[in-house]
Amino acid sequence: KNKPVLFSGPCAVESFDICMEIGEKVKKETQRLGFDYVFKASFDKANRTSSGSFRGIGMDMSLEVLQRVGKELGVPLVTDVHESHQVSEVAQVVDVIQIPAFLCRQTDLLLAAGQSGKAVKIKRGQFMAPEDMQYAVQKVRSTGNENVCLTERGYSLGYHNLVVDMRSLPTMRQFAPVVFDVTHSVQQPGGQGGSSGGQRQFAPYLARAAAATGVDGFFIETHPDPSIALSDGPNMVPLNQMGGFLEMLKATWELGNSYKEFQLK
Amino acid sequence: KNKPVLFSGPCAVESFDICMEIGEKVKKETQRLGFDYVFKASFDKANRTSSGSFRGIGMDMSLEVLQRVGKELGVPLVTDVHESHQVSEVAQVVDVIQIPAFLCRQTDLLLAAGQSGKAVKIKRGQFMAPEDMQYAVQKVRSTGNENVCLTERGYSLGYHNLVVDMRSLPTMRQFAPVVFDVTHSVQQPGGQGGSSGGQRQFAPYLARAAAATGVDGFFIETHPDPSIALSDGPNMVPLNQMGGFLEMLKATWELGNSYKEFQLK
Amino acid sequence: KNKPVLFSGPCAVESFDICMEIGEKVKKETQRLGFDYVFKASFDKANRTSSGSFRGIGMDMSLEVLQRVGKELGVPLVTDVHESHQVSEVAQVVDVIQIPAFLCRQTDLLLAAGQSGKAVKIKRGQFMAPEDMQYAVQKVRSTGNENVCLTERGYSLGYHNLVVDMRSLPTMRQFAPVVFDVTHSVQQPGGQGGSSGGQRQFAPYLARAAAATGVDGFFIETHPDPSIALSDGPNMVPLNQMGGFLEMLKATWELGNSYKEFQLK
Amino acid sequence: KNKPVLFSGPCAVESFDICMEIGEKVKKETQRLGFDYVFKASFDKANRTSSGSFRGIGMDMSLEVLQRVGKELGVPLVTDVHESHQVSEVAQVVDVIQIPAFLCRQTDLLLAAGQSGKAVKIKRGQFMAPEDMQYAVQKVRSTGNENVCLTERGYSLGYHNLVVDMRSLPTMRQFAPVVFDVTHSVQQPGGQGGSSGGQRQFAPYLARAAAATGVDGFFIETHPDPSIALSDGPNMVPLNQMGGFLEMLKATWELGNSYKEFQLK
Repeated sequence: KNKPVLFSGPCAVESFDICMEIGEKVKKETQRLGFDYVFKASFDKANRTSSGSFRGIGMDMSLEVLQRVGKELGVPLVTDVHESHQVSEVAQVVDVIQIPAFLCRQTDLLLAAGQSGKAVKIKRGQFMAPEDMQYAVQKVRSTGNENVCLTERGYSLGYHNLVVDMRSLPTMRQFAPVVFDVTHSVQQPGGQGGSSGGQRQFAPYLARAAAATGVDGFFIETHPDPSIALSDGPNMVPLNQMGGFLEMLKATWELGNSYKEFQLK
Repeated sequence: KNKPVLFSGPCAVESFDICMEIGEKVKKETQRLGFDYVFKASFDKANRTSSGSFRGIGMDMSLEVLQRVGKELGVPLVTDVHESHQVSEVAQVVDVIQIPAFLCRQTDLLLAAGQSGKAVKIKRGQFMAPEDMQYAVQKVRSTGNENVCLTERGYSLGYHNLVVDMRSLPTMRQFAPVVFDVTHSVQQPGGQGGSSGGQRQFAPYLARAAAATGVDGFFIETHPDPSIALSDGPNMVPLNQMGGFLEMLKATWELGNSYKEFQLK
Repeated sequence: KNKPVLFSGPCAVESFDICMEIGEKVKKETQRLGFDYVFKASFDKANRTSSGSFRGIGMDMSLEVLQRVGKELGVPLVTDVHESHQVSEVAQVVDVIQIPAFLCRQTDLLLAAGQSGKAVKIKRGQFMAPEDMQYAVQKVRSTGNENVCLTERGYSLGYHNLVVDMRSLPTMRQFAPVVFDVTHSVQQPGGQGGSSGGQRQFAPYLARAAAATGVDGFFIETHPDPSIALSDGPNMVPLNQMGGFLEMLKATWELGNSYKEFQLK
Repeated sequence: KNKPVLFSGPCAVESFDICMEIGEKVKKETQRLGFDYVFKASFDKANRTSSGSFRGIGMDMSLEVLQRVGKELGVPLVTDVHESHQVSEVAQVVDVIQIPAFLCRQTDLLLAAGQSGKAVKIKRGQFMAPEDMQYAVQKVRSTGNENVCLTERGYSLGYHNLVVDMRSLPTMRQFAPVVFDVTHSVQQPGGQGGSSGGQRQFAPYLARAAAATGVDGFFIETHPDPSIALSDGPNMVPLNQMGGFLEMLKATWELGNSYKEFQLK
């Protein structure tokens, strides 16, 4: 393909209106700039640091909202699953099933996702060496489903901190297309006491770095007002800056892509 | 309590005979030395590095074997669960439900385990700062279940390597009793290509270190012949060395325990 | 300045001829592409993993060669110092004094370098948080010397492995101009038994990533035949690929530089 | 030998009186408990985070104080060197020359220390894999000096944090006797802005862990009032607790030592 994919939306399905506000804006920008757009929102924040945090408006209502959003926007959808029994219901609504990073070694979940026939997007665990992601890909492919991609979102560098090892991008592209998750890569796990913090200020730098290194797509969470987003606010890109952000990303991606074949001997 | 707990058995329920051979030997040693013994075996290796690896003899057959082993040995049982729907069935057989390290932030699984009324043993994720485990404990306790303990099994130190930060033991004991997982702490994730390697030679050192630091119990996988164990062989303690190993552990634990109140001002 | 700086040469002063072969080629390419060129070679490899490794042809002879190379090429010179008493002699020959990464906290060395009046280039220690490099800069500035820059060359990610945390580049640029050390960033410390290994294949990716993130210059070791270079061969850029490498770097740097003011609010 | 060695004193040579107060107290306790005692104090804090920090009362005065302290106490002395030209002067006063962790790969310093004929104590760099310390030992031994030991003081676990990997102790004991540095292992590099913080509360735990793992000696900085110590206060053991601390250490060391031959097959 000659366009990068953009997976983007709010973190959680907060409401239909918020989803549409975000989806319409992002769709317009991706059309202007030449990205393939997939709308993203989670129906359940199943692994929040503490149980007092917002988890979502419920699976049924979320899937309903997602379906309406997909139909109105006319774009494909991605959402994540947490247990294998959720896959069949979710697969009726979305086009891409995302495997959360903590769950990237759960064989049953990978197999269920593969068997759904939908595209499968696996996030690299914060504890997994890049080359070991080939086994996650193989698990999905063992179901006959070849439509799988990987996502980079940082590796544990000590406590409460993630580092993006840019070497992981070419390493994982040997196995499958690779998406760079801009906003989770600047998360600080548990960095705010009972919830995760974030370093939004580094998002433009890491996004450019990954784009220049070479990837197949990007994942960006956005919100009209990150300070009131119900999850992951500290690391989100404000919706009104998405246009400029994507412009920068596209130009850098094109340059990175043009050096795809450059190798040292 | 004045005795440490020992969780021990093969990694997976390979067969009734292997379980009994191991259980009888370990029970005898724990009685001789003064440990509370809980027999451990997994009914499913749900997160093997690659899908070609042995996963188990099936949940139903494994639980049946576990139940017979528990009855014949007259000891409590522990096994791990991977998805929340497994909890109720498993809870009919075992006394302690173990939450795998990768899953220590899966809220539904923690809540289901808590609601079962059984004791809940949570392994610290290889990506979780020790102090953040308090939120996992709180999730279980929010169900009204106070019977929860934590387990240390190493933190990601770069790729394919784990380090045991002994500071995690006193840190986590502020929240709940802490078990030191001797054999997984010397695992090397993905260190043998498509499967995890291990450094059995370091097990006695780390076990002594943790015992002297101060813990409430230990977790040790053992096998009559680790070289043919169907999983985790490279890091297991050979069954015929368990007696000497536990002797060493008990003596060191007693010493560590006697300094429990020692603090610098 | 509107041009990036390139520090480049062989790792060690192997001989006058090798230095000239490299310097002439690199100078030509930097003139063609618009880099400010500083010739680099070490007079002493003072911290090789093992004492059997090549250390150099001696300080006096090396400085003599460097001086001739500088004169013939008409370019400024950089070399590193290891103890404070070396600074005054070295400062008579070179224009930039480099502080090795392991030594970035040695106050005497930083002060001596500062007092020489020459430009001072400090490599970030593999053990130093990016923000802590401000104190190294302050030590040099306390001598009244404002001509100081920092260099990124990777942080310890477990044993025998370095990771480049691209966040360090904007963090350190708050304190001083920042140079990205392409070839040491792909080193694997002690990764080949008694000597350091390298992953040359990742150099183009990390170089593009850093250039897009935004830096003030680059550091690249090169050799006509890295396989026979007397040190650091496994991570060097082959001399005959320097033209293409620098072209790629310049284009990416220009793009990264054009987004220098882009910030998320 | 059947006694562990204790290297202990203030961090820096603050004054003759402080040195004597500390040395007399520690000597008395080591005699009571059965340690070989070596008095430690630095003549120069050469790598403080920032240049505003206390560096010492000067090399000449410090060495003079050290010499008097050694004579009055009748115990051997250790101090660290930072550049090779310091070695000969220092070697006239002390019995053990300590190589700082950051400098453990500086070949000239290791050779100069070896050539002095004094015992050489090398601290493992916060960036050095344990097995790579064999090359540092070999550098000293290449001078014909066999009297060398290694010291563990923590490895970089992300930014501003060190972890003690207890596996390093048996790994490094293959090459030379190993000393566990209790107080620097609980340092937090740069963790207090322009100076290093510390977690004194963890010192008893790590000390017991290392003693049970098995080592040949300990290094402990102490002060009558750590809150006014001129360096490293936050991680020091208060002098009036040294007695109890050493008692605990000795008992644990004896136990650890008794399992020296225990190996898993």
